[in-house]
Amino acid sequence: MNLAALREQSMDRSRFPIDEWALTETSYHEEDLGLTESLFTVANGYLGMRANPEEGRDAHAHGTFINGFHETWPIRHAENAFGFARTGQTIVNVPDVKVMKIYVDDEPLNLGTADLERYERVLDFASGELRRNLIWRTPSGKRVRVDTRRIVSMTERHLAVLSVEVEMLSGSAPIVISSQILNRQDGEDEYHVPEAAMGEGMDPRKASRFTGRVLQPQRHSIENGRMLLGYRCTNSQMTLAVAAEHALITENSYEVVTRCSEDLAKMAFRVDAQEGVAVRLDKFCTYHTSRGVPVRELVDRCERTLDRASRQGADRLRADQKQWYADFWDTADVIVADQPEVQQAIRYNLFQLAQASGRADREGVAAKGISGSGYEGHYFWDTEVYVAPFLTYTQPQLARNVLHFRFRMLPAARRRARELAETGALFPWRTINGEEASAYYAAGTAQFHINADIAYALSKYVDATGDTEFLIRNGIDILVETARMWAGLGFWRSNGEKSFHIHGVTGPDEYTTVVNNNLFTNVMARYNLERAAAAVDLIRDLDATAYQQMVERLQLQALEVDEWRRCAAGMTVPYETELGIHPQDEHFLDREVWDLTHTPAELRPLLMHYHPLVIYRFQVLKQADVVLAMLLQGDRFTLEEKRANFEYYDPITTGDSTLSAVVQSIIAAEVGHQEAALKYFRACLHVDLMDLHRNTVDGLHIASAGGVWSALVFGFGGMRDHGGRLSFDPRLPTSWPSLSFAVRWRGARLRVRLTAGALELAAEQVDETGADCEVPVLVRGTPYLVRPGEPVTVPLTDQGPMLTSGLGSTPATGARRADGTKITAGVPEPSAITNPVETLGPVYDRTHD
Amino acid sequence: MNLAALREQSMDRSRFPIDEWALTETSYHEEDLGLTESLFTVANGYLGMRANPEEGRDAHAHGTFINGFHETWPIRHAENAFGFARTGQTIVNVPDVKVMKIYVDDEPLNLGTADLERYERVLDFASGELRRNLIWRTPSGKRVRVDTRRIVSMTERHLAVLSVEVEMLSGSAPIVISSQILNRQDGEDEYHVPEAAMGEGMDPRKASRFTGRVLQPQRHSIENGRMLLGYRCTNSQMTLAVAAEHALITENSYEVVTRCSEDLAKMAFRVDAQEGVAVRLDKFCTYHTSRGVPVRELVDRCERTLDRASRQGADRLRADQKQWYADFWDTADVIVADQPEVQQAIRYNLFQLAQASGRADREGVAAKGISGSGYEGHYFWDTEVYVAPFLTYTQPQLARNVLHFRFRMLPAARRRARELAETGALFPWRTINGEEASAYYAAGTAQFHINADIAYALSKYVDATGDTEFLIRNGIDILVETARMWAGLGFWRSNGEKSFHIHGVTGPDEYTTVVNNNLFTNVMARYNLERAAAAVDLIRDLDATAYQQMVERLQLQALEVDEWRRCAAGMTVPYETELGIHPQDEHFLDREVWDLTHTPAELRPLLMHYHPLVIYRFQVLKQADVVLAMLLQGDRFTLEEKRANFEYYDPITTGDSTLSAVVQSIIAAEVGHQEAALKYFRACLHVDLMDLHRNTVDGLHIASAGGVWSALVFGFGGMRDHGGRLSFDPRLPTSWPSLSFAVRWRGARLRVRLTAGALELAAEQVDETGADCEVPVLVRGTPYLVRPGEPVTVPLTDQGPMLTSGLGSTPATGARRADGTKITAGVPEPSAITNPVETLGPVYDRTHD
Repeated sequence: MNLAALREQSMDRSRFPIDEWALTETSYHEEDLGLTESLFTVANGYLGMRANPEEGRDAHAHGTFINGFHETWPIRHAENAFGFARTGQTIVNVPDVKVMKIYVDDEPLNLGTADLERYERVLDFASGELRRNLIWRTPSGKRVRVDTRRIVSMTERHLAVLSVEVEMLSGSAPIVISSQILNRQDGEDEYHVPEAAMGEGMDPRKASRFTGRVLQPQRHSIENGRMLLGYRCTNSQMTLAVAAEHALITENSYEVVTRCSEDLAKMAFRVDAQEGVAVRLDKFCTYHTSRGVPVRELVDRCERTLDRASRQGADRLRADQKQWYADFWDTADVIVADQPEVQQAIRYNLFQLAQASGRADREGVAAKGISGSGYEGHYFWDTEVYVAPFLTYTQPQLARNVLHFRFRMLPAARRRARELAETGALFPWRTINGEEASAYYAAGTAQFHINADIAYALSKYVDATGDTEFLIRNGIDILVETARMWAGLGFWRSNGEKSFHIHGVTGPDEYTTVVNNNLFTNVMARYNLERAAAAVDLIRDLDATAYQQMVERLQLQALEVDEWRRCAAGMTVPYETELGIHPQDEHFLDREVWDLTHTPAELRPLLMHYHPLVIYRFQVLKQADVVLAMLLQGDRFTLEEKRANFEYYDPITTGDSTLSAVVQSIIAAEVGHQEAALKYFRACLHVDLMDLHRNTVDGLHIASAGGVWSALVFGFGGMRDHGGRLSFDPRLPTSWPSLSFAVRWRGARLRVRLTAGALELAAEQVDETGADCEVPVLVRGTPYLVRPGEPVTVPLTDQGPMLTSGLGSTPATGARRADGTKITAGVPEPSAITNPVETLGPVYDRTHD
Repeated sequence: MNLAALREQSMDRSRFPIDEWALTETSYHEEDLGLTESLFTVANGYLGMRANPEEGRDAHAHGTFINGFHETWPIRHAENAFGFARTGQTIVNVPDVKVMKIYVDDEPLNLGTADLERYERVLDFASGELRRNLIWRTPSGKRVRVDTRRIVSMTERHLAVLSVEVEMLSGSAPIVISSQILNRQDGEDEYHVPEAAMGEGMDPRKASRFTGRVLQPQRHSIENGRMLLGYRCTNSQMTLAVAAEHALITENSYEVVTRCSEDLAKMAFRVDAQEGVAVRLDKFCTYHTSRGVPVRELVDRCERTLDRASRQGADRLRADQKQWYADFWDTADVIVADQPEVQQAIRYNLFQLAQASGRADREGVAAKGISGSGYEGHYFWDTEVYVAPFLTYTQPQLARNVLHFRFRMLPAARRRARELAETGALFPWRTINGEEASAYYAAGTAQFHINADIAYALSKYVDATGDTEFLIRNGIDILVETARMWAGLGFWRSNGEKSFHIHGVTGPDEYTTVVNNNLFTNVMARYNLERAAAAVDLIRDLDATAYQQMVERLQLQALEVDEWRRCAAGMTVPYETELGIHPQDEHFLDREVWDLTHTPAELRPLLMHYHPLVIYRFQVLKQADVVLAMLLQGDRFTLEEKRANFEYYDPITTGDSTLSAVVQSIIAAEVGHQEAALKYFRACLHVDLMDLHRNTVDGLHIASAGGVWSALVFGFGGMRDHGGRLSFDPRLPTSWPSLSFAVRWRGARLRVRLTAGALELAAEQVDETGADCEVPVLVRGTPYLVRPGEPVTVPLTDQGPMLTSGLGSTPATGARRADGTKITAGVPEPSAITNPVETLGPVYDRTHD
């Protein structure tokens, strides 16, 4: 049973005190440096900086990443076959501007050895700033205040502002602040990796896919106080320029010494610091990157960004940042009253969604955002299924951006479809540049469902925003090409009556692969086909010219559209009458049941201890994709089916994927397993904060962060958006006094407040045109129209069904079991042989959590 | 339809004239050098030399290989997972002793540019010798006779004898014969690769798995006229010593100049050759190799071999070789009267079986023998299913050797079983050193059937030879451990009655993978379980002490043996009543049928043009494993089932595997498709001679060669060996006057002659003990006892059923078809994108042909 196996953990509250608007650390620890580097990341969707200290030392893995900025490399398969992914793509650790080393009396500040009177690090959700405040007693006994601040600007996409303020509290001393831009990707990296902070097999140097230099130097200079380095990637030919300039504010006297080479630009500020006279150094840093523009052009862009930034100054830029977040929180915030610990974790996750997507602009949202190199910076279905709902309902422009990003991948997806002998378009399972980068097709390319996931997110976006302009211009191409792919991939069979079958695919659950009629895939494909056909009709009705253009652009045939409808109508949806459940795939119930109750914790996650051939033979799940289907296609299942499915799959779901808990929580809430819903929610809420999957060191789990919002709004808030209409059927946990959130719907913002006794709905006009700012909703089947200025309160007598079945202790309810005559037990013997790390990447990279 | 797609080819008989006892080439061609290098290989099962010319130039790929002598390397998976194969194993191109360069008037002999009055190359099946006879007109107009001879000795396992005879036919001249041992694996290889001879993507240099030196030099010397080089492999730590010495026989005066370095030992014989006075240089070459013995010890062995060889002399060694082959052919020969072309090809294939296995001794029989580096020198199931029948019935000691080789792999197989969470032993799909080397598990590790294949070959060997001593001492361990694996891998299900199921395995047909209840696997596993249980009983009855030792050694439990019998009895054997056929696996008939009739020839083999996910979705076969099951387990199927199965599967079988044609031929003959049987036989017969699969350049197809014998004896001879008894139901092709062959049975040799009107059987005593030299046989159900000196003639009125159905032109008879409403056709669109060769090995290495 999944629930039972959840790691019961808590945060060390003496180190990380509860604060509803910040993550605060009050003492320095070396043993989990990798974790805290990820947790205290600052980013804006374009640029991300792991929380490596300014001093440049004591790091698990220095990391500065730019969304989509990657190097390519040829994938060498140990045994190759036709159509296997060819082009590896790995996000590049870009030159590090964070370095601002501090020396007092020529003694370096180094947290690992320093005598610290005070240490505090604060990631401020309201201002989007990372601050650190130290009081350092130097080896010669002098007390020094060292405060640093760091933002990656939301208003200036290419800008980061770092500040250091140093003040001699007792005594005077020469102070040096050595500010650098350091290319760590290719250089001799000087960092020190404390043994304790090294995750198992996670040596970032070993993980390198690259054999030679990644960044070919093109420019390096320090002119007029500006440091600049420019590069071109060896294979991908992407270009990058990075520049920084400083403002030194002090009453002390100082001099500046500079040094510049291909991989290092350095400015040392040598200050004669008097006691009580502070030194503040503001560092304005800018990155510009491109797939083709020459470095020279990027240098110009850097100049313009720095001109503007230095004119505005650090304080103004920080104020702008705070205002951006104020606007963000206005819609994005979800409030649980009187639960400060939960509230803090909720805001932490929502804050990470902002950091991963805020200024992604023309790029996607990677699995780890830009907080680490995990999954090599790749984009997966995470975006569409786990992040897009939050964006669609709180920041619709950002949702449009990620969908437009997929639109621009269509040419590559069309080529990939040809390679897989399919029509239409086939989106890659994991990618940066649009080409398939999944080197293990069974849990990669075979996940055809990503196409329907994209079509799903697109359709939901259009429903919620009414943005038919986007549909007509871009979206329809995605819908048509993916529908074509499904119609070609599946085939018709006659067994009495004709039905449409999709074979040889892998659903989201990666513990069974390459199966026939995976329920999730089939119901999502059905939706894809239906929505494509409906969108064609809609465009014909809306705009005859646009329709004609589309027909020509896509060479669309009327017969095709009819065929999509037939495929959707004839779609096979596996159902087992006796158990009253939907099998995960056509032959899922033929498998042996894996006895999770008797699988020791040290053999989890299963993928780290069993060969895929072992796992694939059993009824055992990484994440329950039937349960996910009941969320995304919830109007196609009865409540009874949902309950039966949930109770069947939950006990055989390992939750080895971080994408699992959120879905289990939402459906548990819907069917009435309220206790389980809350437990799963907490597991989702703390994936990173408590490092529940032990790999936050590689970066934050952005899909899970999105899942926190979904669990709150869809799970406890009971919101659904089937059929283009919002509905509510709330499930407030008994321990929560109230739950408040807001969603955007067409021209309006709907504010929702849920208490035990009522659902309160209020609409605000957002769209300046004034159009469409009434929000029609269903509350438990009853329609309401929420108009601006006319709040609606719906009294509630309960919070849905409350099941008290023994979920959490019983084995698979109703699961078919192997006959007792079998000699060996249901749990495969653990292997005595562990797999040595001879891999190019971490072993868990082969599948997606 | 498979038959229709067979390439109609013939050999150029002006270049390769028909000769029943030799393969002869009468003119020199550069455009297919790689092919002829493989075809004219000489080998003895231990040492193999591709037919590179003595001159050392004009080669596609120089190759000298020693069975089992390999280097290891870490397999780097693009995406790794638990239990994936870790240790790559690649046969090493050992230092080349073939080099004997010839200079006349300081002009090198070089076939590519030489003016040749005469050219003949002969591979003599009777003497086991490769000869080449040239008359060369030098640039200065002198005529020179150059004859070379080459044997790899069957009587002296570690010895090769090369001779060069040069005679000035007109004029006198200084002649230099530069005899070398050259390490090409690590050195700067000087060879010239003619463009025309380069197969697609088959650059042997690119194919290298190695990054540094493979052979670490340990010794090099020329002392007392003996050249010697010694090495140790960098990773595998295997050791090798190679040495050579010469006998120069001439009336001319000469001098010798030597040179020696780590990778080259060279002796140049400078002869003042008078017209008409021949120079003959015999070169005795020896290789000794080991997994652990130091080079120093191997050097001693080389000395002893050379002492003996030089004492015996080349002529005596060649005479011994001829006698060995005379003994070989006495039992191995298969004679088809009045069909010289067929006869030549038959003997060519049988000769290759001798060359691949004759002195393999303690090693296995690799897929390519030792004729090339294809499949990296790995051992597969080929040995047990395609080669072992020939060995068991003609050279039983060699069959015992290969089975003993598997026995020695048991410890590694036990470890591998633990790694895959199984009990017992799990043999690797491909290996040299016993560890799994298959980096693509779907068509590798998942082929669990190899365990049953080994148990099958072992059981057949024991049946045919009565060698219970081997069974008691070694064989039983294999049977018990594989039976345990099957009992653990499968599981019981109750659907009304209990049945035993095996899920998640790949059968021999690699065009569907990781399926449930693959028929071939299940019926072979059933046999494995039955034979293991029976063998335990047999040993208990034969030898109480041995039984007790076995029980203790294997910790055998009586309950286990009962369980094996239950598993065998309950084994699921998929059967489809409506069509009257056995589905290849439980869900095979759910798939769409691939329309091979409309698949263009340029899209074959499918694996080179379609992603595995495409191929796996369809009913389309690389080889028909249900048909193979009907051969190996022929007593468990009715003739009617065999016919129905054959007619169902044949039209959807591509024959993209070289292992396909032989099986189709045998079952076609049995069920009555006589024309198809002969066509498939010819395809099998000419796999290498006509390069039908376009990859003989990488080495000869030894399994297919074994298949030639099986097709003759089991197919046309109609012999079967079910239930421990020989039976005959002949199927002589109408165009053949007679077919004769011999098989060993216990202490006897049974000579069989088949004509249209009769089956003649005669027994000879072979075993000196005189025991058991009567041969009981069944001919079409009637029992006969064939005693030495008492031949039996059984008159025949027919050669079995003669079906005249339109096999070869009709589409899949009775195959379920997709409903016509599907828009796309049954054949996936060909991909416009070809896979560039970025692979470590040839692309077709990923699966096994």
